[in-house]
Amino acid sequence: MNVNLNQDTICAIATANGVGAIGIIRISGNEAFQIAAKIFEGKDLQEVKTHTIHYGYIVDKSPNASFDVRDASSNMQNDLVENDGLKPETRNPKPENTEVIDEVMVSVFKAPKSFTAEDSVEISFHGSPHIAKKILEVLVKNGARLAKAGEFTMRAFMNGRIDLAQAESIADLIASENEASRKVALNQLKGGITNEISILRNDLLNFTSLIELELDFGEEDVEFADRTAMNKLLLNLRHKLSALIESFQYGNALKNGVEVAIIGKPNAGKSTLLNALLKEERAIVSEIAGTTRDTIEEVIHLKGTAFRFVDTAGLRETTDIIEKIGVTKAKEKIASAKVLLYLYDERDSTTEEVIAFVKEFHREDLKIVLVHNKVDLTNDETPNEFDATLNLELFPDYCDELLRISAKDQTGIEAVKTVLIDYVENLKDQESNVIITNQRHFDALQKSLQSVLQVEEAVSSGIHTELLAYELRNALEQLGEISGEFTNDEVLGNIFSKFCIGK
Amino acid sequence: MNVNLNQDTICAIATANGVGAIGIIRISGNEAFQIAAKIFEGKDLQEVKTHTIHYGYIVDKSPNASFDVRDASSNMQNDLVENDGLKPETRNPKPENTEVIDEVMVSVFKAPKSFTAEDSVEISFHGSPHIAKKILEVLVKNGARLAKAGEFTMRAFMNGRIDLAQAESIADLIASENEASRKVALNQLKGGITNEISILRNDLLNFTSLIELELDFGEEDVEFADRTAMNKLLLNLRHKLSALIESFQYGNALKNGVEVAIIGKPNAGKSTLLNALLKEERAIVSEIAGTTRDTIEEVIHLKGTAFRFVDTAGLRETTDIIEKIGVTKAKEKIASAKVLLYLYDERDSTTEEVIAFVKEFHREDLKIVLVHNKVDLTNDETPNEFDATLNLELFPDYCDELLRISAKDQTGIEAVKTVLIDYVENLKDQESNVIITNQRHFDALQKSLQSVLQVEEAVSSGIHTELLAYELRNALEQLGEISGEFTNDEVLGNIFSKFCIGK
Repeated sequence: MNVNLNQDTICAIATANGVGAIGIIRISGNEAFQIAAKIFEGKDLQEVKTHTIHYGYIVDKSPNASFDVRDASSNMQNDLVENDGLKPETRNPKPENTEVIDEVMVSVFKAPKSFTAEDSVEISFHGSPHIAKKILEVLVKNGARLAKAGEFTMRAFMNGRIDLAQAESIADLIASENEASRKVALNQLKGGITNEISILRNDLLNFTSLIELELDFGEEDVEFADRTAMNKLLLNLRHKLSALIESFQYGNALKNGVEVAIIGKPNAGKSTLLNALLKEERAIVSEIAGTTRDTIEEVIHLKGTAFRFVDTAGLRETTDIIEKIGVTKAKEKIASAKVLLYLYDERDSTTEEVIAFVKEFHREDLKIVLVHNKVDLTNDETPNEFDATLNLELFPDYCDELLRISAKDQTGIEAVKTVLIDYVENLKDQESNVIITNQRHFDALQKSLQSVLQVEEAVSSGIHTELLAYELRNALEQLGEISGEFTNDEVLGNIFSKFCIGK
Repeated sequence: MNVNLNQDTICAIATANGVGAIGIIRISGNEAFQIAAKIFEGKDLQEVKTHTIHYGYIVDKSPNASFDVRDASSNMQNDLVENDGLKPETRNPKPENTEVIDEVMVSVFKAPKSFTAEDSVEISFHGSPHIAKKILEVLVKNGARLAKAGEFTMRAFMNGRIDLAQAESIADLIASENEASRKVALNQLKGGITNEISILRNDLLNFTSLIELELDFGEEDVEFADRTAMNKLLLNLRHKLSALIESFQYGNALKNGVEVAIIGKPNAGKSTLLNALLKEERAIVSEIAGTTRDTIEEVIHLKGTAFRFVDTAGLRETTDIIEKIGVTKAKEKIASAKVLLYLYDERDSTTEEVIAFVKEFHREDLKIVLVHNKVDLTNDETPNEFDATLNLELFPDYCDELLRISAKDQTGIEAVKTVLIDYVENLKDQESNVIITNQRHFDALQKSLQSVLQVEEAVSSGIHTELLAYELRNALEQLGEISGEFTNDEVLGNIFSKFCIGK
């Protein structure tokens, strides 16, 4: 890894945008303590222990502001000064020209025991964006630089505190909106994926060493690597890589949720079903004040996985999918969906109609669930043509779910949920105990698999050992990309630019 | 002060809503350490020193979540564990049923050396609102209660760490959007207003004691209080109270900004002038990334004071104020403005027209500034009728500013700024070195002044000493309301309910 390490001192707001009780500004770099000390009225930050917190004031010792609020008697309250039990010696009297910015708490982290593994300071201030701006201005005036997006985490990676997959997991954790995405990100932060990959890389490395040993003895035509064992190892590798690659579909569902389309004729009960599903969700959401999100209305969490109901508003407007809008437009609506709930009222549908629909919308990676709604309105005394189809026998094979519900009476709703949960459970790959959630990892794994397949072909076709070694090195590098052992500035820049400022 | 102290342990998110690199959850109360220890995997928080920071995990030891992400090899990275240099003993192995919520840093503040003067803990987590919700859930599950708005600050007040005016200043600091409001709030936080008020109260208390002494000797008809000195004292008091009350207009301008209306005929150059004024502002605002605000377009900061251009979009639409819309509607637009910039192009206006306008809009508390725009288009060779009026002599007395500018050429813009700054400077009351910014304080001061006036009248009319003492006690209570020495639950509830959650 050949990236220039910037040793300058960076600073940024680390808390969310907007007004809060507390805001945090983070400083990291060689000069973190010196710069912080210059703007802090309180204990000497260069003298305090690591992982300690200190009360004081952020001050600008050379303010250019000509505006003056006449300073009232500045005998600060003992109560306040006592906050950390340490009366700052420097505070009173202070230089005539010093401007006080805010009363703060400052946390000190000495290298390498910090997030970035550099000397770091965190300033906890009264959470006004204006105060944040003032403090950043004073920091910049005293030698710090505004951090770029992800620069703190990039430094943590550069300084070897975390690997690249862990760095990525931090962004994922921050962005996590549900239990599933939180858990996979946390697992990755703990090194889950890196551990799994390193086992694979070790296998590959052993193999490569043997092949390269053969190269050293190239003229003598020896075979250190038992070709049978080698084939077995390659097969094993291929299986492991495939399993990881396959886990991406599941991982993606956990991380980004599963798109579900509810579709059906007008009055089939689409909104009623959606509301029935959302009912519980809304209750959960409103339990904790201040965490409600505007967009949650169309997301349902089941066993920690988010199910996103794509463009439901649009679907609601649809007055007659098959006849009026036509199949093309309906297909657009459900193009990105993984699950399609096709809702119908048997009193208003024919078997042929439903079969036609299913055939039209069938897609390899779309689970179609037929949902027979309004069973409350059908009683045994009024059987009809449609009832005969309930055993699914008339439907194509790929249509393996038929539910009978009454969205209005809330009967059968649990069965709908179970179908959704089962969809996700079925994505689980039993062969891998690590789940891939990251597109970059997925791509690197696919390239690795490609390399392994090439090695396998090379072995079976009796290719020259040198070329074989080349293919193996190639695979090793691909795998090394995930943890950041092999990577380049462009890739890194791309990864960290997606982080938020202050991380 | 007789408010029941809630001794239970409260918790809340203290950082702004939304996604950030870091989020902070604050816990305060008797059980803060015990509850935090129950959900923290790391050092024993009950054993650590105050003002120290500890690395570890927030865990739920009895999760009811049935969803499981298969835990990868959980040998956590030494790098991570080393973060605070203390390897948590309890982490590995952990109980089978423990669910890890997030990797965190925890700060410990022991009573009374904390913001609330209670045992307090701050959890710094990966700033996802979902993670915040999970941590709050676990805290509540383990005995904490979600805090109400302002409850942390209310406890700081209840526990005597800060007085009521200081508590209010914290809310003001957090809400501060410019230098002026930040400075007055910070000054108040340092005790500025409380100190000033306490001097007044002492004067009043001395006087009251003498009067009450007279009451003790009621039968003997003695006069301990020298009536001449008393009158002098009352006069002094009245002046001080009046000065504080008068400072409110200035304080209000600093805290909430000054509303300015730009008005004029179509093509008088209103937008051009506004843009010229805003130009610099926009540059300043964009200097620090992430602090730009959507609403800033119509606010200009001059020497730290915000000047708000009321409903400028609306004014822009106005095609001809006097004739088309009529004076009534224009008056509505500028009803809340403190400064009115009346812009005209002399080639398109007559003296009578401008005078009519000024007379129509004249208001005691509105500063009208005539702004003669497009001077670049008027040259000496084409003098016109209007030029004669430039000496202001034809205008009413209350119209004391006439500026000649060219908004297009940016000439005279500084003069406009100076007029705005001078408006604020002129509000300054030279008699008080403390500035009132709070409506509640303003009301209490007015009531106090009322009481003092009543005492003065009582003294001069030779009222019974007992009634005099009553009036004095009344004034003392009014003044005590500002610092919270005399107050009631309703007032307190009202004050703190306006705080944000987590403060």
